[in-house]
Amino acid sequence: MQTKLRQHIEKIIPLTDEEFAVVFSHFSFRKVKKHQFLIQEGDSVNHSYFVVSGLLKLSYTDANDKEHILHFAMEDWWVSDYKAYFTKAKATMSLDCLEDANVFCLSLDDHNKLCGSLPKMEHFFLTKSHYGYIASQQRILSLLTTSAKERYEQLLIQYPSLIQRVNKTLLASYLGVSRETLSRLSS
Amino acid sequence: MQTKLRQHIEKIIPLTDEEFAVVFSHFSFRKVKKHQFLIQEGDSVNHSYFVVSGLLKLSYTDANDKEHILHFAMEDWWVSDYKAYFTKAKATMSLDCLEDANVFCLSLDDHNKLCGSLPKMEHFFLTKSHYGYIASQQRILSLLTTSAKERYEQLLIQYPSLIQRVNKTLLASYLGVSRETLSRLSS
Repeated sequence: MQTKLRQHIEKIIPLTDEEFAVVFSHFSFRKVKKHQFLIQEGDSVNHSYFVVSGLLKLSYTDANDKEHILHFAMEDWWVSDYKAYFTKAKATMSLDCLEDANVFCLSLDDHNKLCGSLPKMEHFFLTKSHYGYIASQQRILSLLTTSAKERYEQLLIQYPSLIQRVNKTLLASYLGVSRETLSRLSS
Repeated sequence: MQTKLRQHIEKIIPLTDEEFAVVFSHFSFRKVKKHQFLIQEGDSVNHSYFVVSGLLKLSYTDANDKEHILHFAMEDWWVSDYKAYFTKAKATMSLDCLEDANVFCLSLDDHNKLCGSLPKMEHFFLTKSHYGYIASQQRILSLLTTSAKERYEQLLIQYPSLIQRVNKTLLASYLGVSRETLSRLSS
């Protein structure tokens, strides 16, 4: 497990064994089952999660009880309700498991301590944050500029494995189309 | 001018006069006129911009020559085509001035040098990046979950001054609706 976390961080910054031991001491580990929630709307959000294995979804439920999917998170992704996590507000989103998952958990307090004791981790998080920002910008552009058909085709290219792992109702919610529209697109 | 930059940074981290001198030495300054471009599609993106005064728009033009607005940027905002900036790719977006503007410019090289020589600036950029990520997530949610009418009302509350400063055609493009729909909403 911890090898995956180390490999993930070392894609951006090299770590000695001693440094990785410091990093690792700031994380806790959780096994979560399919259907289990890591964050529920209204909760305090105590952790950011690094996904070692499994598949999760981050979603928002509107006043009409309709679920909208911000994004999925699979192996090597970081996920949380970051607004609530960084501002210590209550969660407006939910995070639950579509498959059994193994995650490493990092509290904001430990995040800050880790950056304090090992400043190059701040560089790691900054780089990850930039990538996250860029991905969000691309998703905004995609929602503004492309049809549901084009978004489905983009998804097929970017995350071919996701299509196999996620049911059509959830895929439709992520793409922002009805289940019926998606069936037409994917048939 | 430089006071605004210092106040902006000091909202997140305190700086001594010496430290601010180091920070400031990494920036250059530009005055830009209304209609002038700071970034054009296909350009190299050499800078991230901090807006001291004025109003800019970051937009994407699709294959049918339709312009889609990612976001506006006014006083105290950072803006660039960050995908191109961080990955050294060519710009896919354009950044132009809706009003005469004063901006501070930071190259990626100087960004990295600055973080190297003053590690707490990495903390500053990380915090700004988190806020940017959060704002993007909110915009995705808003595009997924709200009607054009609700998005227009949100904008009125969040950025009342923007409505006065931006013409209706551009506002419609930002909200992802037609000019006619916006006229109905705002009448």
